[in-house]
Amino acid sequence: MSAHAIETATPAPQKVRVPLNGINTPGLFATIDVVKGQPQLGAFQFRATGNWMGGTHTQTTMSEFSGAGGEHSHKMAFTADADHPAVLCGQDNGPTPVECVLHALAACLTAGIANIAAARGVTLHSVQSSLEGDIDLRGILGLSNEVRNGFSGIHVGFAIKGDAPEAKLKEIVQQACARSAVLDIVSNGVAVSVETNT
Amino acid sequence: MSAHAIETATPAPQKVRVPLNGINTPGLFATIDVVKGQPQLGAFQFRATGNWMGGTHTQTTMSEFSGAGGEHSHKMAFTADADHPAVLCGQDNGPTPVECVLHALAACLTAGIANIAAARGVTLHSVQSSLEGDIDLRGILGLSNEVRNGFSGIHVGFAIKGDAPEAKLKEIVQQACARSAVLDIVSNGVAVSVETNT
Repeated sequence: MSAHAIETATPAPQKVRVPLNGINTPGLFATIDVVKGQPQLGAFQFRATGNWMGGTHTQTTMSEFSGAGGEHSHKMAFTADADHPAVLCGQDNGPTPVECVLHALAACLTAGIANIAAARGVTLHSVQSSLEGDIDLRGILGLSNEVRNGFSGIHVGFAIKGDAPEAKLKEIVQQACARSAVLDIVSNGVAVSVETNT
Repeated sequence: MSAHAIETATPAPQKVRVPLNGINTPGLFATIDVVKGQPQLGAFQFRATGNWMGGTHTQTTMSEFSGAGGEHSHKMAFTADADHPAVLCGQDNGPTPVECVLHALAACLTAGIANIAAARGVTLHSVQSSLEGDIDLRGILGLSNEVRNGFSGIHVGFAIKGDAPEAKLKEIVQQACARSAVLDIVSNGVAVSVETNT
């Protein structure tokens, strides 16, 4: 390499990241860099408080959480209801708890798709998902010890439109699956401790 | 045993089940009996459709489901939002997907507590739950392959008041845990298949 070449060499062009798909892409990468430098900032705790409303109806509030070295509040205290449907002797005041799991899974994967598409410079037009969870209620009704209580399986179908070839859109979904918190929880299980006070 | 005793013997008293805690207890037991006689009626499928709203915001609709040998609709199409909070570069238009998992778990266990208490003739006054899920975001941010994407653990605390001794209330919570669909899903994991169409 000549001296001249060294003098005129320019640094490899920095990838310019711009907001895309409603994602603050530069902010997202800055966040990743901060946690890379200070891994303890990645420790978060999310919380929910449930209140029995009578029958099989519960209302949950999600408001405060900790992470990035501090306490945070959502911009409002979010509430969500869940209940059993009439066919299961409930009052149907909300979706069933198992449908709420499907909602959590849809939302987590979709947020990942939007983030990853933005990071890869792909503009999305629409992302729709259709989730199905099969469950044999002989488990929760106490009629069988062979039948599990929860879903026997979940199927997620995505219909995704964006400015990229099919293969690239599929790779984005694949990467969203590889880095989804809820897919990990639902697929691999989590230790749950339960304590009761009267 | 004398003939007189035989003549006057009455059948063992039938347990009278009455509605309690807002639970239609006789209806619940009738449902269990029906599924016991026709196990195929226990096969349910719950569904959700997710729609990307931009950024990391998803809105899910939960409306139709099948089970008990037919198709059902909730009394209305329930919708739920989820988003990432500002500290994670989201617009905070709803709880996070992982908080939705905590909501599902709280609601499922609480519905079970109410049903089981009613079945055991225990009047409940209040059931409150407080859930915490710890998560190290280095997983979903792609900064570590050793850190899992989902919660490392979930803690559920119940504060329960009812017309029964502490031990009986604790047994009810224990039985709700033993027959909870969402606790099973979250603890033990479920096979999830994902398909993408463009």
